[in-house]
Amino acid sequence: MEQKMAQWGFNSEKRTMTIRDFLEILKGNLNKNDERAVIPLGHGDPSPYPSFKTTPVAEEALLNALRSSHFNGYPPSAGLSAARSSVAEHLSKDLPHKLSEDDVFLTAGANHAIEVVLSVLARPGANILFPRPGYPVYEARAAFSNLEVRHFNLLPERGWEVDLDGVEALADDKTIAMVVVNPGNPCGNVFTFKHMQKIAETAQRLGILLISDEVYNHIVFGSNKFLPMGILGSVTPVLTLGSMSKRWLIPGWRLGWIAASDPNGVLKKSGIIDSIENYLCITADPATLIQGAVPEILEKSTDAFFSRTNDTLRESADACYTTISEIPSLSCPHKPEGAMATMIEVNPLLLEDVKDDVDFAVKLAREESVMIMPGSILGLKNWLRLSFSVEPATLRDGLERIRAFCSRHSNTFKDEARIEKICFIKSYA
Amino acid sequence: MEQKMAQWGFNSEKRTMTIRDFLEILKGNLNKNDERAVIPLGHGDPSPYPSFKTTPVAEEALLNALRSSHFNGYPPSAGLSAARSSVAEHLSKDLPHKLSEDDVFLTAGANHAIEVVLSVLARPGANILFPRPGYPVYEARAAFSNLEVRHFNLLPERGWEVDLDGVEALADDKTIAMVVVNPGNPCGNVFTFKHMQKIAETAQRLGILLISDEVYNHIVFGSNKFLPMGILGSVTPVLTLGSMSKRWLIPGWRLGWIAASDPNGVLKKSGIIDSIENYLCITADPATLIQGAVPEILEKSTDAFFSRTNDTLRESADACYTTISEIPSLSCPHKPEGAMATMIEVNPLLLEDVKDDVDFAVKLAREESVMIMPGSILGLKNWLRLSFSVEPATLRDGLERIRAFCSRHSNTFKDEARIEKICFIKSYA
Repeated sequence: MEQKMAQWGFNSEKRTMTIRDFLEILKGNLNKNDERAVIPLGHGDPSPYPSFKTTPVAEEALLNALRSSHFNGYPPSAGLSAARSSVAEHLSKDLPHKLSEDDVFLTAGANHAIEVVLSVLARPGANILFPRPGYPVYEARAAFSNLEVRHFNLLPERGWEVDLDGVEALADDKTIAMVVVNPGNPCGNVFTFKHMQKIAETAQRLGILLISDEVYNHIVFGSNKFLPMGILGSVTPVLTLGSMSKRWLIPGWRLGWIAASDPNGVLKKSGIIDSIENYLCITADPATLIQGAVPEILEKSTDAFFSRTNDTLRESADACYTTISEIPSLSCPHKPEGAMATMIEVNPLLLEDVKDDVDFAVKLAREESVMIMPGSILGLKNWLRLSFSVEPATLRDGLERIRAFCSRHSNTFKDEARIEKICFIKSYA
Repeated sequence: MEQKMAQWGFNSEKRTMTIRDFLEILKGNLNKNDERAVIPLGHGDPSPYPSFKTTPVAEEALLNALRSSHFNGYPPSAGLSAARSSVAEHLSKDLPHKLSEDDVFLTAGANHAIEVVLSVLARPGANILFPRPGYPVYEARAAFSNLEVRHFNLLPERGWEVDLDGVEALADDKTIAMVVVNPGNPCGNVFTFKHMQKIAETAQRLGILLISDEVYNHIVFGSNKFLPMGILGSVTPVLTLGSMSKRWLIPGWRLGWIAASDPNGVLKKSGIIDSIENYLCITADPATLIQGAVPEILEKSTDAFFSRTNDTLRESADACYTTISEIPSLSCPHKPEGAMATMIEVNPLLLEDVKDDVDFAVKLAREESVMIMPGSILGLKNWLRLSFSVEPATLRDGLERIRAFCSRHSNTFKDEARIEKICFIKSYA
């Protein structure tokens, strides 16, 4: 069998590196003799931390679903009707039009929503536009589906807005869709209504589908309010990807959705809605048991719970921004105002023995037991993605370790010493 | 956008019809004026029925996982280590070699395990062998992945054993794998060790991977004991697909697995294990919360619970076999001895106004509010798949409605009347 299998080349397969992959690399580089706790700023899973504990409402709702024994059976492929309509109602609160349950498709988390949408859109010759920096699961799924990816830039000097000229230059008649992420992961920005209008108008002009990843919806703590891209569904149809993972702090419950904001019925007429429904018949389902808890969770969750999370994140974002600003070799061009991460630029010229972002992340793990994601994994070399959704005290500890690392590796003092030496020599010349 | 989308042909997409699709057709044909309850014998979801209630052990384990708050975060892509090793230990009880957690990959149910394995194996030019009758999710996923499917027969006259001569005739140097389902869905048969040996030797001779769908493992109630195909892993490597759905009666919890029985390490050397791990990084996960309950469920479930299910199914299988044997236009060539369904042959020549199996199922739904799956959906025309995992009293009611339907549509009496008439005329000639 080995000989026969060799023809298929399983051994030579390559895959786009995901965040999970790089976390494994970082784990392999941790120093086991460091007695300090490992500080994981490399990925956004707030759920283990006391400050990010989910609401008792969610736990109670799941308990009720379990006790009812009504949710042990197979779910319909697009999700339980009651769960779909409660998500529709929930999202409609922020929209000028009303979504129905037929506009909402439940998935096993938002990663699965990405899988579904890209599997449906992929076809020979088509290309899709993704932001840079982005979220590598998009790249990995597109590569698996042989969907050509083209990257437009997010502009740090403009608060990580989309480079819409770049979008226009990249798109052609084979471009099927563009993806935006708002609130921004990994940049922590929140789009203004004016910018969203320009995005929607660009998509409309190019005749491409707008996919809006709003996994961090309502997780905002700056001056810009969160607005869903679906409010512009009458300009251009929008597929919104969402989940309960971040706002309810339960990523392990694996409950996400795809919502179509399409008041003019373009997606229906184009057959895209049917294609999504078809694909859902042949892919994984979120657990019925968890779907069964959704209506109660959405109905009973309180603003106090959501505010607590945003207040904690605001303080954490401030701490990041302030500390990073004080470190000469790092800079954070835009104070995070949403989501749970920020992008930090590294200047390797000011560091000794740190040749780039990947080297920074590996050595930081080894020397300080702090995990951080190199921007290269997200398409942006010599940047770092710092996820700040850990316990605030842990974050502060992590930031101080980053400061110590940069200080230890700084070549500024040595340069100053060198300059002083030159001056000294010159003065005696 | 509509014009531009038209080029991609979303509107003309077709998909292999699945059981879920045909159930929708049947639902559309139900007579709303029939006051009797609808009897769903068309699909195998035992969970709503009192006789098939899950064990309190499972509910208690999930409660404990929920209360611990330890399982709200993202799972590792192959599953939680504790859950993987408990599944490995559980499966090893029936094997001559010991599985480790590295041999087990958790999926969101067994349908998702099928998705993972076929996504990994699909590559240009490859073909795969599936049984006929089969389980249409295989066909639908293979079609989506452009994996060529070839069907070998299961032989009713030999207790639904695999037609191994057919397998040999179908396979060529581009055949990558064959799938067997044991205990058999939809046939309700259980393979003997001798037949399993022949299957493994055939796969070994052909150099193809053996995929054994054991979703109904240990659900047996006839004379043949359940043996996992993995016991022959040293003859040829086996990927076993399994789940908690059927044995624990919780399909809505969506917890399945892929287990590699490969004592000689062939799958590892071929790169197939790496490919599975890679694919798991970019696909849906089973809920961490449910994974968290797995070790306790596997450890504490009692034989009494499993026996209760098998005892109920034995009686139901008997009732099916006996009633069907009494209906002239139907026949059941093999009394079910495992799983939760049986195949029934229809003789349309003995029925009036029923032209084939699809027509039978549609008219049975309309006239008797009984749903049953036409064999055509599973690749076998003029057969029916009857799922008997409903409440026993409901099953008996359903069987009597099928009897009434066949009797009402029978053309036997009319033939007899016609013959009598001819005889009468002749006697006066």
